[in-house]
Amino acid sequence: MVIIGAGFAGVAVAQGLRAQNNLQITLVDRRNYHLFQPLLYQVAMAGLNPGDISTPLRRLFSGQRNLAILMAEVDRLDLPGRRIHYDNQWLSYDFLVVCCGSKHHYFGNEEWEEFSPGLKTIEQATEIRRRVLLALELAEKESDLQRRQELLTFVVVGGGPTGVEVAGAIAEMVRHTLVGDYKLADLRSTRVVLVEGGDRVLAAFPTSLSAKAEQFLRDLGVEVKVNSRAANPNSFSITINDEPLRTKTIIWAAGVRPSRLTDEFSCPKDRSGRIIVNSDFSVPGFESVFVIGDQAAFPTNDGQFLPALAPVAIQQGRHLARNISMELKGLPRKPFNYFDKGIMATVGRTRAVVSVGPVQLSGWIAWLIWVFVHIMYLVQVKNRVFVFLQWAWAYFSFGQGARLIVHKTWKFYSGEKIPIQGK
Amino acid sequence: MVIIGAGFAGVAVAQGLRAQNNLQITLVDRRNYHLFQPLLYQVAMAGLNPGDISTPLRRLFSGQRNLAILMAEVDRLDLPGRRIHYDNQWLSYDFLVVCCGSKHHYFGNEEWEEFSPGLKTIEQATEIRRRVLLALELAEKESDLQRRQELLTFVVVGGGPTGVEVAGAIAEMVRHTLVGDYKLADLRSTRVVLVEGGDRVLAAFPTSLSAKAEQFLRDLGVEVKVNSRAANPNSFSITINDEPLRTKTIIWAAGVRPSRLTDEFSCPKDRSGRIIVNSDFSVPGFESVFVIGDQAAFPTNDGQFLPALAPVAIQQGRHLARNISMELKGLPRKPFNYFDKGIMATVGRTRAVVSVGPVQLSGWIAWLIWVFVHIMYLVQVKNRVFVFLQWAWAYFSFGQGARLIVHKTWKFYSGEKIPIQGK
Repeated sequence: MVIIGAGFAGVAVAQGLRAQNNLQITLVDRRNYHLFQPLLYQVAMAGLNPGDISTPLRRLFSGQRNLAILMAEVDRLDLPGRRIHYDNQWLSYDFLVVCCGSKHHYFGNEEWEEFSPGLKTIEQATEIRRRVLLALELAEKESDLQRRQELLTFVVVGGGPTGVEVAGAIAEMVRHTLVGDYKLADLRSTRVVLVEGGDRVLAAFPTSLSAKAEQFLRDLGVEVKVNSRAANPNSFSITINDEPLRTKTIIWAAGVRPSRLTDEFSCPKDRSGRIIVNSDFSVPGFESVFVIGDQAAFPTNDGQFLPALAPVAIQQGRHLARNISMELKGLPRKPFNYFDKGIMATVGRTRAVVSVGPVQLSGWIAWLIWVFVHIMYLVQVKNRVFVFLQWAWAYFSFGQGARLIVHKTWKFYSGEKIPIQGK
Repeated sequence: MVIIGAGFAGVAVAQGLRAQNNLQITLVDRRNYHLFQPLLYQVAMAGLNPGDISTPLRRLFSGQRNLAILMAEVDRLDLPGRRIHYDNQWLSYDFLVVCCGSKHHYFGNEEWEEFSPGLKTIEQATEIRRRVLLALELAEKESDLQRRQELLTFVVVGGGPTGVEVAGAIAEMVRHTLVGDYKLADLRSTRVVLVEGGDRVLAAFPTSLSAKAEQFLRDLGVEVKVNSRAANPNSFSITINDEPLRTKTIIWAAGVRPSRLTDEFSCPKDRSGRIIVNSDFSVPGFESVFVIGDQAAFPTNDGQFLPALAPVAIQQGRHLARNISMELKGLPRKPFNYFDKGIMATVGRTRAVVSVGPVQLSGWIAWLIWVFVHIMYLVQVKNRVFVFLQWAWAYFSFGQGARLIVHKTWKFYSGEKIPIQGK
C-alpha cells in the first residue's frame, strides 16, 4: 500500500493502520516532516520557529513497524498498471491513497509569485518573515518620507482565514508589539491593506461573523477593501481596482488549487479542480485508489462538496483507515459522513470567530476556544506535552522570539554582500 | 559613538554603556539578531532551532534609550575623517568600536565553499543540516551499495573545537539516535571522518585532553585522521593526503580569518590577519578607534596574542565600556588584563574536555560544566529563565526536534520540482 502525501490526511490514514501487521505501507512525501499548517502564519509573523510546528516523519512513525518512509516526489501515476513513478523508477501498489493537498493559485499569472508569495510551505513562511522584518529595518533607515511609507505599507490579497489571520497578525505585530523598538520610523503609521474580491471577509462563515471579523481587523488598524480586485503585483506596487498602491510587501492568500498530481486523474473534477470521489473516497473506475483531503471533492447530501479543511482531512483519513482494515478482514466498506465540528479563524491575538452549527461566537471566548483546539491538535501531532508549554510561551511572547531575517543563500564568503539594501 | 558588529564583543560594549545618558550609540550590524555562536553546531545537527540561539537586537536593546540599531553592511572606513560608509552614505563618529568577528578561511580556494560549507552563520547551519539529513534520505532510497556508502560518509575538515563538536554530533546522531528510524540504510555503517592537519585535535588544549577527546571521538565511531591534509572538495569526493575519499557531505571547520572590514586597517597584523591593538584596544594612530573580539590581536605579557574566543570578546567589551565611561568623566583609560576562565569543548552529548589553568577535566563531569556554562551565558543573552527549560528540553531530545530539510528557494509553484534527487 502506498500513501502519497504526509499532511493531515496521509498521517491519519497511516496512523489508523498501525495495527495492520500484514500491511506494508510506504508513505511518500517530498518533505521529511509533517507540517501543522494552521499555525504556519505564526512562523511568517515571527511568533514561532519552523521546528515548533513541524514533526519529522521518521520520528512521528518511529514506532510503526508496518510503515516505510520514502522522501521522494511522485511525478506520474499509472492507475491501470497500479504503480507510481518517482526518481525515474516505478513502485507498485495494491492500495493507493493520494492526499497531496493544495497550493496557491495565481490564476495563470505565476510570475506574480515572485512579488507576492503565498503561505503554504516553511520556505514561504520564512521568506514572508524576511520581507516583513526587512521592510521595517529599511523603513528605519529611510529618510525620504514617501519611500518610508511605501516600506510601511503591507498588502494581503485574499480575505479567507489565512488572509484575515496574516493581516491581523501584521497589524498587531507592527502597530503594537514592535512600535517601541524603532526610533526613526513611526510604526503607528503602518498601513495594512486586506484586499478581498467578494463582498465580505471569511465568506465561509455566517455574515454576522464576517462583520465581526471585519470590525476586529479595523480595530487593529487594518484597512479592509471588499469587492476589490488585486492584480499585477511587482517590486514596488500592486494594482487594486485599477489604482496602483505603492508597497514593498505583498502576501498572496487569494486562492488555492489542488496539487499538481491531480492532473494525473482524468475523472470529473469540481470547480476548483478537486477530484470528485465516491462515497468511500475511491476514484471512479479504480476501487483501490483513494483521494482524500484538499485534493478530493467529497459530495455531501445537499449536492455540495466538503470544504478543504484540516478536520475534513483528518476524519477522512481515519475513516479510510477503518475501511481498509475492514476490507482486509473481508468486510464491506462504509460510506463516510463528515462530523462538522465547525470552523474558526483568529484575528490578532485575543479575538477570533467560531461557527459551530447554529452557534456563533466571537471575541475573547472564541479566541480561547481557538487556542484550546489548536494546542490540542498540535500536542497530538508533536506527541509531547512539553510542546504545549513551549508553544504557549512562544505564543504569548508573540513577535519577540523568532524575529530573524535569514537570507536566501547560505554563501557569504570573501567580499560578497548580504542583500539588505532591497529584496 | 558607533559600534560595528553585534556579536559578543559589540553587545558587551553596548550594554556596558547603557547608563551613559549623554552618549548616542549607533550599533550597526548586517544582521538583525545576536547569535549565540557556540551552540550553532546544534542547529546544524538538528538539535536546536535557529530561533533558540538568536536574539533579535531590537529586543535585546529595547530598553536602552541611548542606543539606535542600524541594520546595514559597513563597506568602508575613513579613520582620518572619523566616519564610516554604508548604503552609499557616510556616518560620523567620535568613538568607533570595530568588532565584526571572523569568517571561514579556505586559504585562497574560495570555490571550495560550495562543496564544504563552513559553520559561522544561521544560513550555513541550516544548509549543513539540509545536506546531512538529505544524505540519509537519499541513502535510504539508494539500492546501489557503493553509492549508499558514499551518502553515508561524512567528512569534517579541521580538528579545532568546532570540528570536534560537529564530528562527534554527527556520529552520535546518525550512528545512535537515528539508527532505528531508517529501515533500508544501515546507519551503523556510517563513516564520520575528521581530518586535522596538525598532529592532534584540539591543539589549544593540553596534550592529555587532546588524547582524551580523540578517544571520545573514536568511542562514538569517528575516524580521526591527524597529520592529514584535505583538499579539493567537490560534489562527490575530497582528497585526503592525495587519496580521494568518496563522500557527498563535507563540512569545513579548518580555519578562520578576521572579517572583511579588517582590510580597511593599514596597521600591523598578526599571522592570522588580526589587527594588533594597543593595551586599551585602540588602533595605532587613532586613539578613539578600538578593535576588539575575533578581529583584534591583543598582546599578552608573554609576547603572544589572546585567542579568538567568546569569553575574550565579552571581557574586552565590558572593559572597553568601562574605559569609555571613565573617559567621559575625564579619567584615564586602564589597560586590559584577561581573566582566563579556561577553555572547553564537548564531544557528543555526555563527554567534554575542560582546561582551567592547571586543572584538566574530561568525561561526564567536564560535560556537566560545559552544559552549565553554556546555559548560563545563553540565559543571559536570551534574557529569560524560560529559555533554560526550552534549551534543556531541546538538548535532551537531541536529534528529534529540528530535523527539517528546508530548501534553498522558497518558490515551488506550478510544476517546479523540489531538488531532492541531489544537492
